[in-house]
Amino acid sequence: MNVQFINPFIIALVNVLKTMAQTELKPGKPQKKSDPKAFGDVSGLIGMVGTDLKGSLSITFDESLALEIMHRMLGEKPDKINEEVADMVGEIANMVCGGAKMTLSEQGYDFGMATPVVVTGKNHTINHQVDGPRMILPFISDAGKAYLEICFDK
Amino acid sequence: MNVQFINPFIIALVNVLKTMAQTELKPGKPQKKSDPKAFGDVSGLIGMVGTDLKGSLSITFDESLALEIMHRMLGEKPDKINEEVADMVGEIANMVCGGAKMTLSEQGYDFGMATPVVVTGKNHTINHQVDGPRMILPFISDAGKAYLEICFDK
Repeated sequence: MNVQFINPFIIALVNVLKTMAQTELKPGKPQKKSDPKAFGDVSGLIGMVGTDLKGSLSITFDESLALEIMHRMLGEKPDKINEEVADMVGEIANMVCGGAKMTLSEQGYDFGMATPVVVTGKNHTINHQVDGPRMILPFISDAGKAYLEICFDK
Repeated sequence: MNVQFINPFIIALVNVLKTMAQTELKPGKPQKKSDPKAFGDVSGLIGMVGTDLKGSLSITFDESLALEIMHRMLGEKPDKINEEVADMVGEIANMVCGGAKMTLSEQGYDFGMATPVVVTGKNHTINHQVDGPRMILPFISDAGKAYLEICFDK
């Protein structure tokens, strides 16, 4: 796993939340994930397929953070995660993956993006099944935590 | 959404569970999914990317069925869903998607498969974000229920 592959996703996530939801995400220390748990309440997932590489991305939010992003982006704040929040999380995953895809393409790494899938469920866990090492990138904000995982099979 | 795209996945899922785990899955009535919930405890997800189509697949199992498949495939039956069960569910998703990919390729539809992601969490829900209609395919077995969803953006 190459840092060159990871940074564009981190930058895209921070930018998307800053511009779309005026929310500052502070990156924590990247961790090699031996316990395969991204703790959270709502996750956006996207599969990535290129000629030379394939992988998967997930962005997992605490409920409190997902609801606050909804509030800041759209002005409404539901009591709990509903279909609109799920759609928003899928759209964030799409924008983050799309932003990183553009940067990586300029560096000669091309991949196609699958359609997003959103998972909801209190304290669900996400397990990326790749042969290589798995990295989990924690982020802290004023409204709760988020986790970004990007895994490539190379 | 074309039946031609769906059937190879159904056939692959039934075959994989019959040959690998001696488990007979009986397909129920396919349903247009207006409420975006695949109810279940462990899900395997795979993104699919082709030149003309992209989409996502999920296979969701009741805990009881996932544990019994584990028992029949590997001879051991854990008390609850653990990392080995998650790996097995990812592998099943991989085999089902790979089988359908082969059939669809013979029909002129080619796509690449992303790496599998497995979600665990009691009663989590899966929400495929595609523009087209979403279909949910229920299956019944002697050990519990499973749900297959295949969504394509065309």
